[in-house]
Amino acid sequence: MKLLEERIRQEGIVKSGSVLKVDSFINHQMDVLFFDKMGAEFKRLYADAPINKILTIEASGIGIAIIAGLHFGVPVVFAKKSRSSNISDDVYHTVIHSYTHNNDNNVIVSREYLSPEDHLLIIDDFLANGCAMEGLIDLAHQAGATVEGLGIAVEKGFQKGGDKLRQEGYRVESLAIIESMDAATGEIVFREQD
Amino acid sequence: MKLLEERIRQEGIVKSGSVLKVDSFINHQMDVLFFDKMGAEFKRLYADAPINKILTIEASGIGIAIIAGLHFGVPVVFAKKSRSSNISDDVYHTVIHSYTHNNDNNVIVSREYLSPEDHLLIIDDFLANGCAMEGLIDLAHQAGATVEGLGIAVEKGFQKGGDKLRQEGYRVESLAIIESMDAATGEIVFREQD
Repeated sequence: MKLLEERIRQEGIVKSGSVLKVDSFINHQMDVLFFDKMGAEFKRLYADAPINKILTIEASGIGIAIIAGLHFGVPVVFAKKSRSSNISDDVYHTVIHSYTHNNDNNVIVSREYLSPEDHLLIIDDFLANGCAMEGLIDLAHQAGATVEGLGIAVEKGFQKGGDKLRQEGYRVESLAIIESMDAATGEIVFREQD
Repeated sequence: MKLLEERIRQEGIVKSGSVLKVDSFINHQMDVLFFDKMGAEFKRLYADAPINKILTIEASGIGIAIIAGLHFGVPVVFAKKSRSSNISDDVYHTVIHSYTHNNDNNVIVSREYLSPEDHLLIIDDFLANGCAMEGLIDLAHQAGATVEGLGIAVEKGFQKGGDKLRQEGYRVESLAIIESMDAATGEIVFREQD
């Protein structure tokens, strides 16, 4: 999505440690009208898929997932990070490692809201190592749901989570894929997409 | 908003300890098309206010705030719960007590995204004791922003946070106000609104 690449070039800030800050329009201040364009693009990309629910994870995935939900006309379920290690029986549960915070999170979804009837689009703002996506896919599989595909705003292509998921057979649609970026010069190279 | 009252009657589950579960359509599974109606209602209620930004707090406020953002055509900023007690100088910072989890949270917004030019609508899914709202108002005031009003999906009227804010002079628009509820019978009484 050329519009997203342009916006990242304009407003994204490359920091050391493979950090890309897009706080000004994606994951702190959220440009809702721009999200609307991203939601329309996800719908275009997945027009052929029988998606009846969107799954995301708190917190910064929720905004894009909600707008995509409007475009698909389906409900959105967000997986919750549990503060408690005491996990009840009425939830699906997985553990997701965060490289950003260097910790493990218990992540849960109530059994009521994922089922074998569900055909899921899993949405998040970023895909890097793929830990969050693997966790959400695990929750979907526990529920017997079908994963129709993944929808990502910004994929860090150089961190290989996306390519690993594609090799495993998942459909991954990322609106922008960063092939490389340089904190010293601020240069960002995007992967060519159709 | 009669539609919301009806939906709460149908799907809300009253639990002991003044807990109302609306997980099935508001704060775990999110009925996006219903959110669209709530967003339109906030726009109708605040049609006269010069709102140029929406402020909310992660995680369950984000969904409703985003849809409202579409109706107002303005960006949404979400305040973040900081895991670190090490607060940097480039953020506004407040402490919000959670009665649900019985703890205090450091809550931050980057100084870049709130300013004296901002006329804010502050949105959240629930209003009970008002701690979250007081915290968000504090952040707004630190930035010199104007609080045009508050937009709440479900207010627990019997917990007085909303009435206290109204007495302090804030405009509070809640789409449904629960006057009382009974965990034994499941009965919910709503406050009459125009």
